[in-house]
Amino acid sequence: MSRLHDPNMRTFASDNYAGTHPEVLAAIVEANGGHQISYGEDDYTARLREVMSEHFGERATTFPVFNGTGANVLSLQSLLPRWGAVVCAETAHINTDENGAPERVGSLKLLAVPTEDGKLTPELIDRQAWGWGDEHRAQPLAVSITESTELGTVYRAEEVRAVCDHAHSLSMAVHMDGARLANAAASLGVAMREITTDAGVDILSFGGTKNGLLFGEAVVVLNPESSHGMLYLRKMNMQLASKMRFVSAQLVALLETDLWLRSAKHANAMAARLRDAANRLDGVTITRATEANAVFAIVPPGIADRLREHYRFYDWNPATGEVRWMCSFDTTESDVDAFVDALRAELATSR
Amino acid sequence: MSRLHDPNMRTFASDNYAGTHPEVLAAIVEANGGHQISYGEDDYTARLREVMSEHFGERATTFPVFNGTGANVLSLQSLLPRWGAVVCAETAHINTDENGAPERVGSLKLLAVPTEDGKLTPELIDRQAWGWGDEHRAQPLAVSITESTELGTVYRAEEVRAVCDHAHSLSMAVHMDGARLANAAASLGVAMREITTDAGVDILSFGGTKNGLLFGEAVVVLNPESSHGMLYLRKMNMQLASKMRFVSAQLVALLETDLWLRSAKHANAMAARLRDAANRLDGVTITRATEANAVFAIVPPGIADRLREHYRFYDWNPATGEVRWMCSFDTTESDVDAFVDALRAELATSR
Amino acid sequence: MSRLHDPNMRTFASDNYAGTHPEVLAAIVEANGGHQISYGEDDYTARLREVMSEHFGERATTFPVFNGTGANVLSLQSLLPRWGAVVCAETAHINTDENGAPERVGSLKLLAVPTEDGKLTPELIDRQAWGWGDEHRAQPLAVSITESTELGTVYRAEEVRAVCDHAHSLSMAVHMDGARLANAAASLGVAMREITTDAGVDILSFGGTKNGLLFGEAVVVLNPESSHGMLYLRKMNMQLASKMRFVSAQLVALLETDLWLRSAKHANAMAARLRDAANRLDGVTITRATEANAVFAIVPPGIADRLREHYRFYDWNPATGEVRWMCSFDTTESDVDAFVDALRAELATSR
Amino acid sequence: MSRLHDPNMRTFASDNYAGTHPEVLAAIVEANGGHQISYGEDDYTARLREVMSEHFGERATTFPVFNGTGANVLSLQSLLPRWGAVVCAETAHINTDENGAPERVGSLKLLAVPTEDGKLTPELIDRQAWGWGDEHRAQPLAVSITESTELGTVYRAEEVRAVCDHAHSLSMAVHMDGARLANAAASLGVAMREITTDAGVDILSFGGTKNGLLFGEAVVVLNPESSHGMLYLRKMNMQLASKMRFVSAQLVALLETDLWLRSAKHANAMAARLRDAANRLDGVTITRATEANAVFAIVPPGIADRLREHYRFYDWNPATGEVRWMCSFDTTESDVDAFVDALRAELATSR
Repeated sequence: MSRLHDPNMRTFASDNYAGTHPEVLAAIVEANGGHQISYGEDDYTARLREVMSEHFGERATTFPVFNGTGANVLSLQSLLPRWGAVVCAETAHINTDENGAPERVGSLKLLAVPTEDGKLTPELIDRQAWGWGDEHRAQPLAVSITESTELGTVYRAEEVRAVCDHAHSLSMAVHMDGARLANAAASLGVAMREITTDAGVDILSFGGTKNGLLFGEAVVVLNPESSHGMLYLRKMNMQLASKMRFVSAQLVALLETDLWLRSAKHANAMAARLRDAANRLDGVTITRATEANAVFAIVPPGIADRLREHYRFYDWNPATGEVRWMCSFDTTESDVDAFVDALRAELATSR
Repeated sequence: MSRLHDPNMRTFASDNYAGTHPEVLAAIVEANGGHQISYGEDDYTARLREVMSEHFGERATTFPVFNGTGANVLSLQSLLPRWGAVVCAETAHINTDENGAPERVGSLKLLAVPTEDGKLTPELIDRQAWGWGDEHRAQPLAVSITESTELGTVYRAEEVRAVCDHAHSLSMAVHMDGARLANAAASLGVAMREITTDAGVDILSFGGTKNGLLFGEAVVVLNPESSHGMLYLRKMNMQLASKMRFVSAQLVALLETDLWLRSAKHANAMAARLRDAANRLDGVTITRATEANAVFAIVPPGIADRLREHYRFYDWNPATGEVRWMCSFDTTESDVDAFVDALRAELATSR
Repeated sequence: MSRLHDPNMRTFASDNYAGTHPEVLAAIVEANGGHQISYGEDDYTARLREVMSEHFGERATTFPVFNGTGANVLSLQSLLPRWGAVVCAETAHINTDENGAPERVGSLKLLAVPTEDGKLTPELIDRQAWGWGDEHRAQPLAVSITESTELGTVYRAEEVRAVCDHAHSLSMAVHMDGARLANAAASLGVAMREITTDAGVDILSFGGTKNGLLFGEAVVVLNPESSHGMLYLRKMNMQLASKMRFVSAQLVALLETDLWLRSAKHANAMAARLRDAANRLDGVTITRATEANAVFAIVPPGIADRLREHYRFYDWNPATGEVRWMCSFDTTESDVDAFVDALRAELATSR
Repeated sequence: MSRLHDPNMRTFASDNYAGTHPEVLAAIVEANGGHQISYGEDDYTARLREVMSEHFGERATTFPVFNGTGANVLSLQSLLPRWGAVVCAETAHINTDENGAPERVGSLKLLAVPTEDGKLTPELIDRQAWGWGDEHRAQPLAVSITESTELGTVYRAEEVRAVCDHAHSLSMAVHMDGARLANAAASLGVAMREITTDAGVDILSFGGTKNGLLFGEAVVVLNPESSHGMLYLRKMNMQLASKMRFVSAQLVALLETDLWLRSAKHANAMAARLRDAANRLDGVTITRATEANAVFAIVPPGIADRLREHYRFYDWNPATGEVRWMCSFDTTESDVDAFVDALRAELATSR
């Protein structure tokens, strides 16, 4: 098969537009050849379990899966009885971007709460955390938070802890959608463990794809008492990879060195560079804190569409003109600078 | 990440134990680098659609997914209303190996029929195809067949056609689980189209993983009138790959040359070699026709377990002592010969 | 079996606390005796279809079911494909009081919108009605409104029409939860048809239980083109009564005379009487328009609980002290007056 | 509403064709009037709990529901985790007559076993009870038996005990579909407790409708350790009656006197009378043991259809000409005798 695309073209649309990090690809090559037991009894999945325990503690159990929606739905199903409901931010990926998979496949009710910045707090949780024992109400038995959030913000360790303490005091379990957990840890300068296991999170969707994997995520059960039946849930929900060695090898490559951190730090730094430069342009308003690898901004009408003729990115809120610019492990300084130049030029033209 | 396994060790357990074909891996490398639109608007998915149309006809529409269970459930959901039921062989993968995913996620009822050889016929379909309009009965509105079957047999084109004609005469749609479609086509010496599109199949789970992909299958809608909402079903059932270019590039590599056929032919030939050699051994009974890449045999009590100390393979029926030996694209003649030698030695010892 | 309760005790808790209207009970007695075909082929269900057509038009098709949650879930499932979502008011019964049945059993995503008075408008619908064709978003393909609403307000015919016209212009179907449709029609002084069929509603949950039936509701398909598979959906969702004659006979009794209207008018009048009297009391604030049979009020802290020692009713919003007083077909003027007297006495005591 | 049917016409089609027993109707009348707390906190439901404990033991907990399919699905859901499967007879109502409700709503996989007489045994259970720990297989964690069976046979106490002991030894729970439990107890001359609680059954669908109720069944949790979340499951699966007093009062009427036994004994006796008389006719073959209220027979081609011009009943197996004749609490000796006369006459004509 011959190459069909330009390997030097990059956008600010999504960290899913980026490809596979060379070290991850090298791991796939190493893991290839010969036979390995399918469905997770291979040597790479065994190694992954060790690596994960180093990051998340001895009680952590890891279940590689295909994608983030899968990781989220499995995690929540494993935490909850059939009648459970999940308190989450209105902007949570599980609420807005998964075509109802948590409801339809997970059989869960989501109790969504509007937030300022994509982050839940004990007070916000309380808006939906009530009605236990009332059979008419879907029972709020878990909280789901996203780290870093869909709005580019980051929960600090004490904020995660406050959410977990509060949830646990209400006998609710805590799930973290960590599709961009590495970006949060890089942003805070802490070990991933500090904002997950040590802060009281019960189960984690660990994200690999957005941080340089070809594909692959993992459900990480941090509190084994809270999670039930993951082995069966993974299969019955169609998230069990037969040649699992290739998912696990990628995750090992990401996590047994500091690749996860290097890539995340770099993406964050590129976002900061973009935010700083854009912020200096007349007519651009940065709308949210840039704490991870996403920049949110409002640009004048028409500018976004003209800019998109050269650089793909997404509208966040068409009503306000807010757009999202996303950086990834392979975004370069020149990419950022060229993009800002193009933005500056469009702004000049539009005056 | 360093290699953790012996790349020269091979077994007869499953075509899922094999790794990734070098040409497929090369395609992944080619598809890497730069940004490509996620979720299927990339250049490799566009190319895949062309390639698939060459194989399956102009009306074919292709939806890459993660795994075979996913492909099967999505296919069946897209064919059927909420109250639909599926007539299938009792030995069908959807009935025996998917932890109830068709029922639990697909909301389908399976109406299973015992068969001699894993193959449905119009007569066998009729055992469950009745009761339309009776609200108490799950409505039999689709037939699912597996090509090649879970028992290593192959439907000839006219057999598929007979199933499809009969099903269509009853207003039922036909799904084919083609996890090993390539092996069937190789066995029959026909184009894949002859046993799918041209024989009247409405929707196909096309298998890549068992034929040398790292991972990746595709739902191929052959009859667009029969299938509804695949775009949404794929996402809501957690089978939508974000970096889809890497699924598509693998399938392109498999299908734009004759790689699919070479690999399948080879696996079939190795199975035939194994069947022929084993058949000549006293104490071994070949139990089923070896039409694709699986050999089924009964060996004396104790032999299988001792042999398994060196070569992994699965029991098929513990009650009768029947075992399954599976060959894959990377099985060598020496692998087969060494295995048969080992089997012969165990048989000699056991006398 | 001997009587265990006081048949003269009545509360203001819910129209579900009331029993069965004598005319309805008489209909059950008439329908008893001998054999009738089960599951809906009986003479009373045939008669019900005629009666319903008189009320809702020639195209109306009626499916008796057990309860309101059942009617709602069946209606929505029949309108929507597996990937559909429903725009509804945040206060809708389907969103707040059905323990997630629409999501869990119906496999639907609800897209809830905050409202002032429990009523949707085209503008409010637009807050969630977007994203068609985006596979990541549950597809908004229906609107559900409640008539009269959970907040005791009533959509006028032109308001229903505006919702339906807007929904239809977006290719969305309209469901009406008519658990208290009779109260709305009585309040507006219109035929039920004017606020359902003639206003463009596609499918109706017609409520009987809250208007004097022992049990029993009906799904009424008003627009046959919009609804699919109700016969099968009813059975597979466990809402098919075997001795259906007894559900149908009750509904016939309610609807072939003006019983539905007499009972609804009376309940509304009792609510108006209560609202007027309570409104004159110092310390009581009527919080919502009393357009049907529910009165919402804020009473001083402590008053509600003391009053509840004699009269059962529910808190609506514990944070604000808002309570709900519900009248039913059997509420008497003396009941209302005695209740107001008791309230007045408590208020006096608390000063 | 006026009577639309002939209260003196009776058939042999189903015990669901019969109406409501006068004592049951009287109980509804007694329970009417005034207000009672809805959703199960009423006085009649409290009384029902006492009555049920007298029949089924102190640990029994009772949940009135609408219908038998509901009782079955709720029971099985409460016994099983999301990945559970149920071993049942191929002829079980849950497998053949509920339009897939256990799979679609309950998210259960059924593992059906062919039987001679509708009854499972430890040996038959073992055909499907295997594969625990294998994530590919739906996990067999419950057994469901029907008492009396769909084929008119009855498990004796020791047979139920053998099933329960065997299931429990495999860590499987036992559900009994007792739609016609009363007929079984009457047939055996034992207390219902002897073939349920005392024999080791964990949860029971107790049938009322087929034994003279207007409508109404109950889930009876016999072993509280085996069942989880029934309160929530009932609501979210749309089986929670608002005016529950009327379901409970009927069940009280059935069970606080010997009405349940009188009615069941009578229906059984009528079936025995019919079987004996038909058995003496040339050309009629009784095909199954008549142990409860159903008679199965093969009659010559054409006879059944001509007989049906006067008496409604169902084909059981169109291929063999087997029909089912069902007796109910209101079947009279004259009904039976007239039916046999008609059958005799048709047989004579056909010679």
